[in-house]
Amino acid sequence: MTSTSEAQLAAAQRQDAGAERVLTVALLGGGTVGSQVARILLDDAEALTARAGARLELAGIAVRNVGAPRDVELPRELYTTDAEGLVARADLVIELMGGIEPARTHILAALRHGASVVTGNKALLAQDGATLFDEADANDAELNFEAAVAGAIPIIRPIRESLSGDRITRVLGIVNGTTNFILDSMDTTGAQFADVLAEAQRLGYAEADPTADVEGLDAAAKAAILASLAFHTRVSLDDVRCEGITKVSAADIAAAQDAGMTIKLLAIAELVADGAHGAGTGKGEGVSVRVHPTLLPRTHPLAAVHGAYNAVFVEAENAGSLMFYGAGAGGAPTASAIMGDVVTTARRIVAGSPGRAGTATRVLPIVGPESITTSYSVGLEVADQPGVLSRVASVFAQHGVSIETMRQQIHGTEKAGGAGAAADKDPAGRGEGASRAELRFVTHRATEAALAATVADIKNLDVVESVTSVLRVEGV
Amino acid sequence: MTSTSEAQLAAAQRQDAGAERVLTVALLGGGTVGSQVARILLDDAEALTARAGARLELAGIAVRNVGAPRDVELPRELYTTDAEGLVARADLVIELMGGIEPARTHILAALRHGASVVTGNKALLAQDGATLFDEADANDAELNFEAAVAGAIPIIRPIRESLSGDRITRVLGIVNGTTNFILDSMDTTGAQFADVLAEAQRLGYAEADPTADVEGLDAAAKAAILASLAFHTRVSLDDVRCEGITKVSAADIAAAQDAGMTIKLLAIAELVADGAHGAGTGKGEGVSVRVHPTLLPRTHPLAAVHGAYNAVFVEAENAGSLMFYGAGAGGAPTASAIMGDVVTTARRIVAGSPGRAGTATRVLPIVGPESITTSYSVGLEVADQPGVLSRVASVFAQHGVSIETMRQQIHGTEKAGGAGAAADKDPAGRGEGASRAELRFVTHRATEAALAATVADIKNLDVVESVTSVLRVEGV
Repeated sequence: MTSTSEAQLAAAQRQDAGAERVLTVALLGGGTVGSQVARILLDDAEALTARAGARLELAGIAVRNVGAPRDVELPRELYTTDAEGLVARADLVIELMGGIEPARTHILAALRHGASVVTGNKALLAQDGATLFDEADANDAELNFEAAVAGAIPIIRPIRESLSGDRITRVLGIVNGTTNFILDSMDTTGAQFADVLAEAQRLGYAEADPTADVEGLDAAAKAAILASLAFHTRVSLDDVRCEGITKVSAADIAAAQDAGMTIKLLAIAELVADGAHGAGTGKGEGVSVRVHPTLLPRTHPLAAVHGAYNAVFVEAENAGSLMFYGAGAGGAPTASAIMGDVVTTARRIVAGSPGRAGTATRVLPIVGPESITTSYSVGLEVADQPGVLSRVASVFAQHGVSIETMRQQIHGTEKAGGAGAAADKDPAGRGEGASRAELRFVTHRATEAALAATVADIKNLDVVESVTSVLRVEGV
Repeated sequence: MTSTSEAQLAAAQRQDAGAERVLTVALLGGGTVGSQVARILLDDAEALTARAGARLELAGIAVRNVGAPRDVELPRELYTTDAEGLVARADLVIELMGGIEPARTHILAALRHGASVVTGNKALLAQDGATLFDEADANDAELNFEAAVAGAIPIIRPIRESLSGDRITRVLGIVNGTTNFILDSMDTTGAQFADVLAEAQRLGYAEADPTADVEGLDAAAKAAILASLAFHTRVSLDDVRCEGITKVSAADIAAAQDAGMTIKLLAIAELVADGAHGAGTGKGEGVSVRVHPTLLPRTHPLAAVHGAYNAVFVEAENAGSLMFYGAGAGGAPTASAIMGDVVTTARRIVAGSPGRAGTATRVLPIVGPESITTSYSVGLEVADQPGVLSRVASVFAQHGVSIETMRQQIHGTEKAGGAGAAADKDPAGRGEGASRAELRFVTHRATEAALAATVADIKNLDVVESVTSVLRVEGV
């Protein structure tokens, strides 16, 4: 009757109960990923029971249309349109409907009655994660979402757990397979964006309406989630500055290649000096979260991520640089991430004590782009005449933007006629068929405001035809 | 007085208790990693308390000599030689002594009184992990060891948790920084092993006695740990077939480069058909675990892992190919991995329910090298005369070993005299100064026995001077 023997008895009972335990699993969504998850739950039941410490009983799959054709052959009686009823009797809910509603309502209902939830719903988490985390904590339930970022790549758990004793300073992610496929194809073939997009659509790598991918919105949702976890604060989609890849041209890619670089769409989350106190004053920390096409040196580990693959590069004070690489989408890879969460969550339910879902231990201000400094690549089409470089350079200098490198490429229209054609050059430099030069500058770190003012003044120079591109540079 | 209000009250009490909770931490070992861990515990106390849900109070650092000089300046009163007393009053023990004893005794003592343990002790885990896991489970304590494999790279947790709903089929790891540094330097400079090893020792990348690294023993311990976790079985160091890099020559590296490949020391853990039933019969599964120098195509993600970096490549049925990359050693990176385990373990202690340490849910037979098929690269020095290739090829054929590619390089000693020297060739082909050819074969998959028999017979051919190298090939 000592407390020790009571503890031992309790432990023994817990083990006995664990051996017999059955957890009722509700699956919301019967699409590509849902079908794969159901297949794994049914086919690998024995191994999953051994690993989870409980039998995972799939009670049903909530879908909009029970009779719709499916990728995977599953027992008909599993399908139901009654998501609410299914959620009400579940110990563990797997939400794969996507979108905000009714996914949000079902997840909150599950958490409120103490069921744990596994989801891959990045849009919902980026928009309203805080509400969900609070509800999970209030009910001692778990909310896990490894599949929401970078598909099968374990990145959520490493950031939340493995790096929980370190100080993450920066996360750079290739987290959208469609845009990486497009940029990688442009890099390989030299083709223009529109042509590669059409090919990607034909091959099924891009959707008929590619907006969410190519405008960077999908990546922005993932950036918000990564930033929240990495910096133990709360970041929502509205906090993410976002620019897509639709303006990246074949000329940008070619210029990047000439400079030993490549262009990737990166989700960037950075710990920076708090802009409210003035950048660099060290008076407080803030977070910058952004998505934009980025020039990267070809020697950077992220530059070697080809095709539709994803990778997340993490910099931490003690760990140094880490990279996580793998398939970022697809039914089976995403199902793998979901099932990892399901087994781990089930283990904790069996152990009697889910972990806390809320990861925010502080509130860091969001630092706007005006306070962030980055390197820029600026491409100009100018008249090929003496003194142009000096005039352009003086504009950079006026705004305090320091130039790291400059490359010039002369491509006058007459030159196509032969080597001697250059002698025919119109001395005014602006006439029909006058030769042009392309200048590509890479700057040292500058603020967006300084760069914008520089570009505005450069555009007003009479020797400048156009500013052909402005791209941010990382990793140099 | 409803059960709901009781549950809410209990949750609130748990939260209150968590806010006040103090966990007593004992640190065993004050070396490079131990000093960094102590520094983080003291300097980042506030952030760690917020993330762990409890204050982590460093009660002491057990060392052999309290007065010894240390890398990091820490309060003198923390040091003690009484490891046993320190362990006895700890909630959480961090073991960084290394080696088998007294580390093993202290870990078992901690687990027996219900304290959880975080360790980076790969040698102990590879030799006696099963005993430690059983003791942890018997006492409802946690045993975590992320730092034991690949330093700061989160790989233990992803395999144990993130991939727990998938079926891992193969793990290929560059898990020893010293040997990767040496092979990478040989690849870059063309130098011989002995010269690069001396340079690595001078730079501090290799120890004065480099045996554990260059003979593959360090990698073998990590291979045993990875195989145990990946395949949910028990693998100890004795089960690992191990070959180091001391025989890798500059000529091997050059030949690899000619073939578009590189040589890496890989820790390989594979799920294979059980050798006891005959490979490929599908009657049962087994595990093959080995460490050896391996030819890899330069396009393989592991080929891009340079210097002392580590990386682990995981193939799983649903997730596909994943890679985890980062710093594999060093005080701060290893301390990052230790602290991730410390915070995560503390969270679970606060939640009242540690997870189960034991990960073995089945017993898979170890499949010996005799049942494993791999591709091989075989280098021969032969007389440069007609018919040699055909005679060598027929020996491969006799043993059922199929040739995928062959490259020939002629380097007769006379040829150094000038282009015309080839005409002076000794027709017997064996005389003083006769010209030699080097043949490099890459085979299709073959058993080690078939390859060994082939090599033995090739050595007996009178036209063969020597077998210069036999290397395994992966990733083709």
